[in-house]
Amino acid sequence: MALYVQKFGGTSVGSVERIRAVAERVARFVATGDQVVVVVSAMSGETNRLVDLAQAIHSDPEEREMDVLLASGEQVSIALTAMALIDQGVAARSYLADQVAIHTQGQHTRSRIKKIDTERLRADIEAGRVPVVAGFQGVDGDGNVTTLGRGGSDTTAVALAAALEADECQIYTDVDGVYTTDPRVVPDARRLDRITFEEMLEMASLGAKVLHPRSVEFAGKYGIALRVLSSFEDDGPGTLITVEESNTMEQPVVSGIAFARDEAKITVQGAPDVPGVASKMIGPVSAAGIDVDMIVQNVGAAGQTDFTFTVKRGDYADAMRLVRSVADEMGAGEVTGDNRIVKISAVGVGMRSHAGVAMRMFDALAAENINIQMISTSEIKISVVVDEKYLELAVRAIHEAFELSGNGKEEV
Amino acid sequence: MALYVQKFGGTSVGSVERIRAVAERVARFVATGDQVVVVVSAMSGETNRLVDLAQAIHSDPEEREMDVLLASGEQVSIALTAMALIDQGVAARSYLADQVAIHTQGQHTRSRIKKIDTERLRADIEAGRVPVVAGFQGVDGDGNVTTLGRGGSDTTAVALAAALEADECQIYTDVDGVYTTDPRVVPDARRLDRITFEEMLEMASLGAKVLHPRSVEFAGKYGIALRVLSSFEDDGPGTLITVEESNTMEQPVVSGIAFARDEAKITVQGAPDVPGVASKMIGPVSAAGIDVDMIVQNVGAAGQTDFTFTVKRGDYADAMRLVRSVADEMGAGEVTGDNRIVKISAVGVGMRSHAGVAMRMFDALAAENINIQMISTSEIKISVVVDEKYLELAVRAIHEAFELSGNGKEEV
Repeated sequence: MALYVQKFGGTSVGSVERIRAVAERVARFVATGDQVVVVVSAMSGETNRLVDLAQAIHSDPEEREMDVLLASGEQVSIALTAMALIDQGVAARSYLADQVAIHTQGQHTRSRIKKIDTERLRADIEAGRVPVVAGFQGVDGDGNVTTLGRGGSDTTAVALAAALEADECQIYTDVDGVYTTDPRVVPDARRLDRITFEEMLEMASLGAKVLHPRSVEFAGKYGIALRVLSSFEDDGPGTLITVEESNTMEQPVVSGIAFARDEAKITVQGAPDVPGVASKMIGPVSAAGIDVDMIVQNVGAAGQTDFTFTVKRGDYADAMRLVRSVADEMGAGEVTGDNRIVKISAVGVGMRSHAGVAMRMFDALAAENINIQMISTSEIKISVVVDEKYLELAVRAIHEAFELSGNGKEEV
Repeated sequence: MALYVQKFGGTSVGSVERIRAVAERVARFVATGDQVVVVVSAMSGETNRLVDLAQAIHSDPEEREMDVLLASGEQVSIALTAMALIDQGVAARSYLADQVAIHTQGQHTRSRIKKIDTERLRADIEAGRVPVVAGFQGVDGDGNVTTLGRGGSDTTAVALAAALEADECQIYTDVDGVYTTDPRVVPDARRLDRITFEEMLEMASLGAKVLHPRSVEFAGKYGIALRVLSSFEDDGPGTLITVEESNTMEQPVVSGIAFARDEAKITVQGAPDVPGVASKMIGPVSAAGIDVDMIVQNVGAAGQTDFTFTVKRGDYADAMRLVRSVADEMGAGEVTGDNRIVKISAVGVGMRSHAGVAMRMFDALAAENINIQMISTSEIKISVVVDEKYLELAVRAIHEAFELSGNGKEEV
């Protein structure tokens, strides 16, 4: 007998038929003697409908009220899911965040979970009932409805799994696991049986959006076994995200190839090579709420330095304006940019103990005559920036170079 | 400076434009220095949408979950209304029932308000903020979401007015007040400036559905001045429902003519004239959840009695079956019925002190050759049952007999 927290996202509860399918799946677990706590998001489309209503009233609606509004979405899902479970003969009971209670702190629309009371849920589990908990929402110290922002429902599920010491937190999505890369780019990309939290974090933050980094981080911190599965296919083990590295003899060097489209880079040439120049350049950009990703600094001509960083393409114009102004102030040289670039990364804990991983990647790109514009490395990741026109070619070349294809492997 | 509880129903908050209009109206009150607490229902159509979703899962969904589901409707309204008020420059804050808190007792889907905490609302009012409270819902002793059933939002408004000792509870609807009768039947029916709770109760329960009897009863019990107004027209005082009878010299004898279509009557002839016969006849019908309205018993032939009662037309077949079975048991005579009847009532506290009111009504009907099938009277009401084909003619005749038309009067 195991205790599972099972989270179903918006598309998984997107219609009455889908909710019924979720209930049938949960009922099968319960029938085998497992204990289940269900977490659901708002039905797909519902959040957009509510946002549109709010926007029709005000372009920037008050955040406290926005939370009250959006939280109604999960309220509908938990009630319908509980009804569907009861219809399947499974004793179930829905819970809003304040009924659990899921205590949060911080600002409206982006609160963080502080503490979860587990008395009511434990009582249900012990009585053989399935609690159905609203994801994405919480209650603050003053009893106000709060929401958790992006990735909120996954975070609720992970936090519940931690609080209840569940055996596994299962995230049901519209994909059946984490792949070595995007199968739309590399058709024979392979589903990974397991991946470490660190790898998953790098994959997620690099654009492989199966799970929000926040929930992965949370799960890693509390050592929660996290599994990504498909809610649309009945079998398949999904991908287990775990603290343990694979203990097979032949540890793969690289687990996956992630990529991020829609990147842009900005270069400042001939900046004075003095302490503090990087923070002076990045400071105003960061203060404007623009995420800066890769940062590379090189020694240039005598007493000068060249400095390049990347931002999301949508922030390119704003960032460029801010940097030009700073560069003028400090008497730097030319500020140039390119908003037609992409970032490709090889991710894998295995590269820690393997030399030559970077070379294999660079060779693969060179063999295809793809010029590398920027390089950045970490212990488990090598990222390169290339012209966006090479994206698919580059991903396929690197995927092949690290022998990640499903062909001829038994692992699936 | 007065404190108003203003309740806006589903059609009054049925769209973003309507919500904006509500906010503008409230803002005008606030601008004059009045204090306002707003109560809103779910946007029109929303409750039906939610019920349809639930029905698609189960024809008889679990009541606890039904309450959670339906309560989401008001949650959307309060958030949007608060946003719209803030957009109007009015400080506002939304409250769910459990945030207020509105404590209820009794069964899910038809709970009753037990107690309302007023601390948070009073703090808002004193700070110049407008609380926007979800109607129709409450929280039970175990923290479950409950709903109040039919007329729930009106009841919330009245209960809040009582708890806050408000000066007036204003119910905004799609009509601009209570009329002497249905203007669709009598085009020159007149809007009443005031009506007593007792009259309003009789009017409401007799089919004039401006307010649910439950909220009127509640308001009467706690002496809350209740006003019905139009949310679609900007001026007009509406109708004040009050404990005080009009103190004009010429108290009108009758305030209004109510009627109920879709009635049916069942007659048992030749029942044994012994104690307990009425309860034996009505008992099974009532036990089957069928509302019995008028009951008339007459002495028949020696040792026998004739017995007639009315039910809603939809319950006619069931009631008839039940009564036939009882009549057979007790050896009564024939059981006959008619499901093509209507009930018409003259209502007015003025008739208490006036003799001859009944005669005026009967004369009016006789002058039109309309046969009266049943008569029932109370202190402030005279009801007659007639063939449904005479409904409009009878209502107009009685309306005229009591000089209720707007013609030539200054009262409006």
